[in-house]
Amino acid sequence: MPELRKDPITGRWVITSTERRKRPSDFRMESVDIVPDSACPFCEGHEQMTPREIIAYRREGGAPNGPGWDLRVIPNQFPVLRVEGTLDREGEGLFDKMSGVGAHEVMIESPHHLDTLATMPQAAVEQVLWAFRERVQDLKQDRRFRYIIIFKNHGAAAGASLDHPHSQLIALPIVPREVRDEVDGAQAHFAQKERCVFCDIIRQEVADGRRVIAEAADMVAIAPYAPRFPFETWILPRRHMASYEDAQRQDFAALARVLGDTLRRMNRVLRNPPYNLLIHSAPLSEPAADYYHWHVEIIPKLTKVAGFEWATGFYVNPTSPEEAAQVLREARP
Amino acid sequence: MPELRKDPITGRWVITSTERRKRPSDFRMESVDIVPDSACPFCEGHEQMTPREIIAYRREGGAPNGPGWDLRVIPNQFPVLRVEGTLDREGEGLFDKMSGVGAHEVMIESPHHLDTLATMPQAAVEQVLWAFRERVQDLKQDRRFRYIIIFKNHGAAAGASLDHPHSQLIALPIVPREVRDEVDGAQAHFAQKERCVFCDIIRQEVADGRRVIAEAADMVAIAPYAPRFPFETWILPRRHMASYEDAQRQDFAALARVLGDTLRRMNRVLRNPPYNLLIHSAPLSEPAADYYHWHVEIIPKLTKVAGFEWATGFYVNPTSPEEAAQVLREARP
Repeated sequence: MPELRKDPITGRWVITSTERRKRPSDFRMESVDIVPDSACPFCEGHEQMTPREIIAYRREGGAPNGPGWDLRVIPNQFPVLRVEGTLDREGEGLFDKMSGVGAHEVMIESPHHLDTLATMPQAAVEQVLWAFRERVQDLKQDRRFRYIIIFKNHGAAAGASLDHPHSQLIALPIVPREVRDEVDGAQAHFAQKERCVFCDIIRQEVADGRRVIAEAADMVAIAPYAPRFPFETWILPRRHMASYEDAQRQDFAALARVLGDTLRRMNRVLRNPPYNLLIHSAPLSEPAADYYHWHVEIIPKLTKVAGFEWATGFYVNPTSPEEAAQVLREARP
Repeated sequence: MPELRKDPITGRWVITSTERRKRPSDFRMESVDIVPDSACPFCEGHEQMTPREIIAYRREGGAPNGPGWDLRVIPNQFPVLRVEGTLDREGEGLFDKMSGVGAHEVMIESPHHLDTLATMPQAAVEQVLWAFRERVQDLKQDRRFRYIIIFKNHGAAAGASLDHPHSQLIALPIVPREVRDEVDGAQAHFAQKERCVFCDIIRQEVADGRRVIAEAADMVAIAPYAPRFPFETWILPRRHMASYEDAQRQDFAALARVLGDTLRRMNRVLRNPPYNLLIHSAPLSEPAADYYHWHVEIIPKLTKVAGFEWATGFYVNPTSPEEAAQVLREARP
């Protein structure tokens, strides 16, 4: 019998379809296979092929926009929003629009083309996470921005146009819908119970154990109760904290460890799948400190989204989170 | 300068990115190319390869589950929800679930493998639309169901597993999120203005003209003001009507005409693109008669959904609806 499950944060229902049950080997997956590319604009030594860097972490000094770096952040050459200009709001009869003001940055996570977050040393992953924090701290000074989303497309099937390890930050003049739904749901839970819904979930999941994938110090990786996608995984700090940029060195060390561990488990079980990774954090200027809780979501790209999902926003997941968590937990990374 | 636009029904924002502006020929599209398949279970003469039919339209009598039909509706052999069983609701600590009760039917739209809604005679398309109505009228008698979604995946890239022309109906025990957002938005508009938001949109779009694609009698095809996807198209009845199944013969004749016309324009401009088609209608047992307005949405599959969209629910559309409408309007179908 298929089951309908409700996400306790957003209230979104999903279908876990046992009739269409899929084990890892049943997915016709596209493995991500990165090959060297001498023309890659993100490789060390090719700094002149990119816009000038916003920040870089350099091993031993070295001049900006030259080699010798561990990571670089650059403006996206084809930004979806522009940092210049004022935020003009306008009506057109029934319709509302505003100018596309924002920021769109690319973080080059390593000088090495073949690196991935799964294979980089933990200290290098920690640097990437720290650099996200630094960029958010800087961008949030701009009062035009309401939200900063950090995300990663890994593999062409997940939307990556370049193989070199990188992620993106987009600062937005509005709070986007998926975040709005999470924040509103968390606020409603808090209004009713005076507790953070994410903290409640973590407590219940850790006690239950069936959906836990990995743990380290203050971080836990779980398969959420009502996942839209097979092998969808969330990593959450156990300690309540609304905003990613408020996390400290030891939080990022723990996150780097659990993130690397989780990605290696996925690579093993799902044979180097394409995936999307995203960080959900509290909106920039809302009093969400009590009720929101930042976290990372990882969505391996294993299934096609088709008419039913577009029509309804209702997802059919052929792998239960209990099964996904068990398989990932038992994988030796 | 990119533009942020807000959908007046759901309040969802999209980004129209002029920097990433795309004309029809810029999309690396997968054309749908249907080839004969002697093993197709949906072809006339292969009725024994499918579950027994629920209804069929037969030209001159003829026995059920044999040849001689114009269209057949059968249960889906791999249903996402099961029609048997009671709707059990259960809690698990924080979490909520219910049994996956529903109905999942397949409509085989033609006995001919190579037919498509774009190439079938208008009268045959009208029969398909009428059969949807008949199935909804029947399924809505079941009080366990709150919503019935009708949708179509055309082409493998849009999620179709069989080429033979077919669509699907799924009856759900809940009102799904995308519909909920539309219904709630329409209700809020009505509460404020005592008018249907869809009727308001139709009036403004027809007067403006820039986003109109095709018109016939009581139907109009438009590019919505804030489309998530390039060449996204809506077809709406001009006359206010909340529920698809309340439409009459002449409505379906007009819809068949505009739908065929629109799909032929898309085929011409976008070279037989894969697409998803869906029908949004009022929930089954809500007093939405005044404020909801049924319509058809067509989403050509031209772009990849990646990390940013999954993270935010915020879509970047590289083609403005004004440009899409103009290109489709000017195409000679």
